[in-house]
Amino acid sequence: MPFDSTEHPHRRFNALTGEWVLVSPHRSKRPWQGQQEETEQDQRPAYDPTCYLCPGNPRVGGEVNPQYTDTFVFNNDFGALTADVPTGGIDEGGLLRAEAESGVCRVICFSPRHDLTLPQMTTPAIRKVVDLWVSEFATLGARPDINYVQIFENKGPIMGCSNPHPHGQIWAQRTVPGEPAKEGVQQLTYFQEHGRTLLSDYLKIELEKKERVVLENEHFVVLVPFWAVWPFETIVIARRPVQDVTQLSEPERDALADVLRRLTIRYDNLFNISFPYSSGLHQRPTDGQEHSEWHLHMHFYPPLLRSATVRKFMVGYEMLGDPQRDITPEFSAGRLREQAEMHYKGAVE
Amino acid sequence: MPFDSTEHPHRRFNALTGEWVLVSPHRSKRPWQGQQEETEQDQRPAYDPTCYLCPGNPRVGGEVNPQYTDTFVFNNDFGALTADVPTGGIDEGGLLRAEAESGVCRVICFSPRHDLTLPQMTTPAIRKVVDLWVSEFATLGARPDINYVQIFENKGPIMGCSNPHPHGQIWAQRTVPGEPAKEGVQQLTYFQEHGRTLLSDYLKIELEKKERVVLENEHFVVLVPFWAVWPFETIVIARRPVQDVTQLSEPERDALADVLRRLTIRYDNLFNISFPYSSGLHQRPTDGQEHSEWHLHMHFYPPLLRSATVRKFMVGYEMLGDPQRDITPEFSAGRLREQAEMHYKGAVE
Ligand SMILES: O=P(O)(O)O[C@H]1O[C@H](CO)[C@@H](O)[C@H](O)[C@H]1O
Ligand SMILES: O=P(O)(O)O[C@H]1O[C@H](CO)[C@@H](O)[C@H](O)[C@H]1O
Repeated sequence: MPFDSTEHPHRRFNALTGEWVLVSPHRSKRPWQGQQEETEQDQRPAYDPTCYLCPGNPRVGGEVNPQYTDTFVFNNDFGALTADVPTGGIDEGGLLRAEAESGVCRVICFSPRHDLTLPQMTTPAIRKVVDLWVSEFATLGARPDINYVQIFENKGPIMGCSNPHPHGQIWAQRTVPGEPAKEGVQQLTYFQEHGRTLLSDYLKIELEKKERVVLENEHFVVLVPFWAVWPFETIVIARRPVQDVTQLSEPERDALADVLRRLTIRYDNLFNISFPYSSGLHQRPTDGQEHSEWHLHMHFYPPLLRSATVRKFMVGYEMLGDPQRDITPEFSAGRLREQAEMHYKGAVE
Repeated sequence: MPFDSTEHPHRRFNALTGEWVLVSPHRSKRPWQGQQEETEQDQRPAYDPTCYLCPGNPRVGGEVNPQYTDTFVFNNDFGALTADVPTGGIDEGGLLRAEAESGVCRVICFSPRHDLTLPQMTTPAIRKVVDLWVSEFATLGARPDINYVQIFENKGPIMGCSNPHPHGQIWAQRTVPGEPAKEGVQQLTYFQEHGRTLLSDYLKIELEKKERVVLENEHFVVLVPFWAVWPFETIVIARRPVQDVTQLSEPERDALADVLRRLTIRYDNLFNISFPYSSGLHQRPTDGQEHSEWHLHMHFYPPLLRSATVRKFMVGYEMLGDPQRDITPEFSAGRLREQAEMHYKGAVE
């Protein structure tokens, strides 16, 4: 009996982080009697007078939102990072080590419409979000006290999102956090050895094989990575090895908006719900170095496994050992490829 | 203004894994309007005819459980790891890499009583669980095809536990997973430099400071680690630097049962609920090496933050950047120290 990755438990190597994931394809047959997630029908008004992100409404900090018409960005009133931190730290024998961290947390409203989400917005409207990412990355990244800019979105209550108004966040800080740091090391090693970015060569293989590709356009490819941890995890890879969003041409920015729209529509169509996920861009540190090894990409980490109500729990073994998944990345890619690119609710805007 | 770790955002270094956590003490003041967890009153019968873990009941695989009177262990009918895996793998340019993984998944029933949890069991009954860990670690670890044994418990539906019958699991496998591998590297480096285990020296500092210690007895100390990620995360550290549970003396095994009972009672008393968590032992790999650098310990990772219904979400920034926490480890340790060691439901057994 030869090894068969669709049948036998195996480990896959994450070339981007240098870590492993345990894949147990046979395990998707187990019955589930555990926690069922709630699915609310996502019926919201276009404007909610109690929402602190809607245009014209007051925020917790007291400020009043402008009557914005596309995107809107402001400093988080309860940011995890603040700018006015005195330097200092603790070091006891290398065992108790802490250091002050400074930065800024921003909130980005994607649309004035309280009732929309990315997959229900038009491509030009999503393009406005991309433009805001570009200008924010440029402005924050230029600050001498900011060496890394993390742009992300938590979508859905199951992902800790406390307001359904379509929005994302930016946390920008002095140090490079662990995840991009690991990706930086792997990318640098590869770049030094091959003179090409790791993701360029990876993308080439994936485009030949096709089995994990979900969708593509002229400038971006979306696929379920070979090493995906979350059941329907995807990665959006720029065909051109750019280091950050500021380097994207006009057509590339349009193309990014296009794949984001098509991907999130497919996600919603998978279980006919507003599909929860955390997503985020990974880009070069803004420490003034060139970082030619860095290749712009975006991760989507959705928690759902079998249906709108059954999620994947990253718990015991995953917290203490390695991440583990039950269905193969190839199976997930197939399911996402099957989905239509017309939203199940029809055109909204 | 000097740096103050109770006020200012900072990063803490996890000496055991070499990773960092972002601590944002000021952020605990933010209002929470997000998802509320359900709390069921945990009323269960001592015997449930539909439970596949209760004595005398049939399991999904068809086998019938014996009329066990203390603990009971069997092979998981839907294990993520199986023994009969052909060797083999994939390697395409170091970018697509997979390798077959073999192992075994076991389920450990802690008690025949469907209605109990660890904090409601007597110390002698918990000692029986410890004894089972010892015998399982010895038997599995002796197998040439098993190089690492992960013992853990997922408690509560919020932790993906699909059956409330008190039970834990063991996943034992050919390779050493990522988490213990990282801890192994850090411990080895420290041991080679100092001739003592990392956790011996760390424990010494914590016992001097006292501010993160929750409880102790002659052989074990429970504390909130300086680098804790989860709001009420704790670590149980053996005072004697043993490498695995088989090296524990009789009094040490009793002492482990004692701290587990006292800790889980405090957890339940914190919010007056059956407190959810994932917990697990970290021990030396069973690859035949001595691993004097390894120091036996047990992690508790509970998801709850402010109350029985508000959890900490490890989402966007945490998945893409670094883990982040809102309350300080010192605050959490204080809250756990305040709790009584008599279970809020009274004595059960
Ligand atoms: O084995 P169980 O209890 O069915 O499953 C639970 O624990 C496993 C090990 O941590 C996880 O992989 C699963 O996601 C979780 O639901
Ligand atoms: O910032 P929010 O949306 O209030 O909070 C959410 O996202 C943050 C960043 O991923 C997390 O730290 C929080 O746990 C989560 O609830």
